[in-house]
Amino acid sequence: MLRIIPQLSELRLELRRICDRIQQNDIVHKEATVQQILQTVQRQGDRALVHYTAEFDQVDLTVETLRVKGDELDAAYQQVSKELLDAIRLAHKQIEHFHRQHLPKSWVQFNPDQVVLGKRYTPVDVAGIYVPGGRAAYPSTVLMNAIPAKVAGVSQIVMVTPPGQNRAINPAVLVAAQEAGIDEIYRVGGAQAIAALAYGTATIPAVDVITGPGNIYVTLAKKQVFGKVGIDSLAGPSEVLIIADEGANPCHIAADMLAQAEHDPLAAAILLTPSLSLAEQVAAVVLDQLAEHPRRLLTEKAIAHYGLIGVVESLEVAAQLSNEFAPEHLELEIETPWDLVDQIRHAGAIFMGYSTPEAVGDYIAGPNHTLPTSGAARYASALGVETFIKHSSLIQYSPTALRKQGNAIMALAEAEGLISHRDSVRLRLEAPPTIDYD
Amino acid sequence: MLRIIPQLSELRLELRRICDRIQQNDIVHKEATVQQILQTVQRQGDRALVHYTAEFDQVDLTVETLRVKGDELDAAYQQVSKELLDAIRLAHKQIEHFHRQHLPKSWVQFNPDQVVLGKRYTPVDVAGIYVPGGRAAYPSTVLMNAIPAKVAGVSQIVMVTPPGQNRAINPAVLVAAQEAGIDEIYRVGGAQAIAALAYGTATIPAVDVITGPGNIYVTLAKKQVFGKVGIDSLAGPSEVLIIADEGANPCHIAADMLAQAEHDPLAAAILLTPSLSLAEQVAAVVLDQLAEHPRRLLTEKAIAHYGLIGVVESLEVAAQLSNEFAPEHLELEIETPWDLVDQIRHAGAIFMGYSTPEAVGDYIAGPNHTLPTSGAARYASALGVETFIKHSSLIQYSPTALRKQGNAIMALAEAEGLISHRDSVRLRLEAPPTIDYD
Repeated sequence: MLRIIPQLSELRLELRRICDRIQQNDIVHKEATVQQILQTVQRQGDRALVHYTAEFDQVDLTVETLRVKGDELDAAYQQVSKELLDAIRLAHKQIEHFHRQHLPKSWVQFNPDQVVLGKRYTPVDVAGIYVPGGRAAYPSTVLMNAIPAKVAGVSQIVMVTPPGQNRAINPAVLVAAQEAGIDEIYRVGGAQAIAALAYGTATIPAVDVITGPGNIYVTLAKKQVFGKVGIDSLAGPSEVLIIADEGANPCHIAADMLAQAEHDPLAAAILLTPSLSLAEQVAAVVLDQLAEHPRRLLTEKAIAHYGLIGVVESLEVAAQLSNEFAPEHLELEIETPWDLVDQIRHAGAIFMGYSTPEAVGDYIAGPNHTLPTSGAARYASALGVETFIKHSSLIQYSPTALRKQGNAIMALAEAEGLISHRDSVRLRLEAPPTIDYD
Repeated sequence: MLRIIPQLSELRLELRRICDRIQQNDIVHKEATVQQILQTVQRQGDRALVHYTAEFDQVDLTVETLRVKGDELDAAYQQVSKELLDAIRLAHKQIEHFHRQHLPKSWVQFNPDQVVLGKRYTPVDVAGIYVPGGRAAYPSTVLMNAIPAKVAGVSQIVMVTPPGQNRAINPAVLVAAQEAGIDEIYRVGGAQAIAALAYGTATIPAVDVITGPGNIYVTLAKKQVFGKVGIDSLAGPSEVLIIADEGANPCHIAADMLAQAEHDPLAAAILLTPSLSLAEQVAAVVLDQLAEHPRRLLTEKAIAHYGLIGVVESLEVAAQLSNEFAPEHLELEIETPWDLVDQIRHAGAIFMGYSTPEAVGDYIAGPNHTLPTSGAARYASALGVETFIKHSSLIQYSPTALRKQGNAIMALAEAEGLISHRDSVRLRLEAPPTIDYD
């Protein structure tokens, strides 16, 4: 079921097919649906949220029960094990530590002629975080979105997540949110939740940036509101590409591939290796591990359609194919990963060596697990504090500097036919300001 | 014609109206047009580019004349004055110098238990730059887009710009491109040019990131291809908000307002001042300066619809209103701009003091002039080297680290119902890799 392809040209075609597995055709008819949901929420506000939640999630809400209340937040701590709470706290600590590294800092630079240039970094005012419900509950998503916003200095963080039966939100999600310092949580999901965050309703405040993964409706809604608000990225289904040598353990590789596939029937799991023997062992072990998998149907589907083992001439060829694919997750399950990493140009996150399964980064190592998918690693990066911070350029010229560079500005303004641009300089040269700043 | 509003509540409403001047309604029917252009170029390639250029630009092209040839590039240098060439070179030097500051650098960090974490920065492979034609020729746009890409280390930069009569491209644009190191230039504009860059044609290569401003069709096309490629931002019409005290020169302020208005009938020019006397003088001088303006009609239109003077109680109130507006350009035409700047939370670029007209930053100071518009400064920043660079997270765990943190990973994986995630750790703990990296 997990195909082994030894032919480079066929392999390349298959990788292209997998990278492009989200077809434009599947999307087009959903765009109109999403547009209508956005417009309805914009017009009707909370009422539309209640309506859509009944329709899509089969949950009865009222405007009063939209927001998760304090007693439910408190109760969540009683519903998670000590072991899980400890795990959430360790993950929190390490994610926060990593995201504090190289936080952008404002700077100014003093140049000749009293020219001052700089960048001033400021956080957004309000951030909105989408946490999916659906197939599983994702406390890790909460941490990976909320912590960068907190570290960036965002003062108001709003979380939305679809409710389950009896309006309940998964307690691990509520605990993770509180550990990250979020207590403004609304039980609404889907495109309607994105609309609420983008436009605001009587209950839910409009935000400046929306982050977090979701299904295709959530993603399309984020794309449509982009411009009105900032967004992190357009998340597609997850994917891993593993480059392994003959020293890799086939059981480990098989588990890593299934760990991707178990997310979503559209998830992709690819192994590239120079070792035919490893390829054959992995294909066999995948079948074994699938046999008793609690999500067997879904996982099998992903492996059958978007699982692949390519047997390649060398690790260098594998690196080249990986660059063409630009995977979200790249595992270098090889003896000397630091030798190969210099050949990697595009990958969301790179997992180095035999002891670093992707799960390490999904949960606990510290780097963000929200990563570019579907080839977007060619141009995009992990979510980070930068997602919640922007800068203003600072420019100060003195009369002296303006006198020295004024002619150049006026020449360019004239070349562009912009006469008032020129005059804004000319008039200052003719009647310089009487105050100087030095 | 340039209204003075002394009433805070009315002023706030007017600022909101101006910020939202691009109405969703104006856009919707253009989206379908753009979608069709994109699909046609994707299907027909170069043929569609020739077709649309004839239809929209009234210029006859052939596939062979799409690319600007070497002799035309050479000849451009003969057609610009020495003064303009010097200005382009000074601007180039200062823009390059500014963009080299704080270029992101790859790093790794060694933690206890042989855990290695880091970020590896790499440029995109191919960048596409859109340079508008239309109302004016913009050599400054070339510099402001190409230099960050060059500084980022992008090895292939492709420029597109709509042709004028006889297929000609403005020589100042061609010179600026060559000074910035670009010689791959195609004469095509509009949504069709964005489609060519996103999907590639037989002649024009597909790129990873598209930057540069354009009209509404270009902007909508960029939004639609976002996800397939990266983009810089969705540029709306330009705007300036000026905060001035009674020490400001009304002639200078008037020229700065007209310098914004002369771009586009949708451009916005706003003055906020505590001085009624300054307000009245500026309103009068604007009329004077308009009288002989070579683009009077267009400029007048912008001033009439989206020009505004607000008389406010204090500079602090002005700063607050500016934060609500989140202007692309903010001028602090006041005696002590460094005192007020700490109150500014959202602005694309801030021009400090009486001797820093926006034109300084538009052309020559060094910071980028491609800035967030229409309130996007709430969450977005200037174009920069970051637009052309992305990073991969690096994660390496050792068997020891995995043993110590494995339980936490497994607890989180189980809470999320992801059994193979758990097993990818469990199997490694049961059969640790025999090779260690320390």
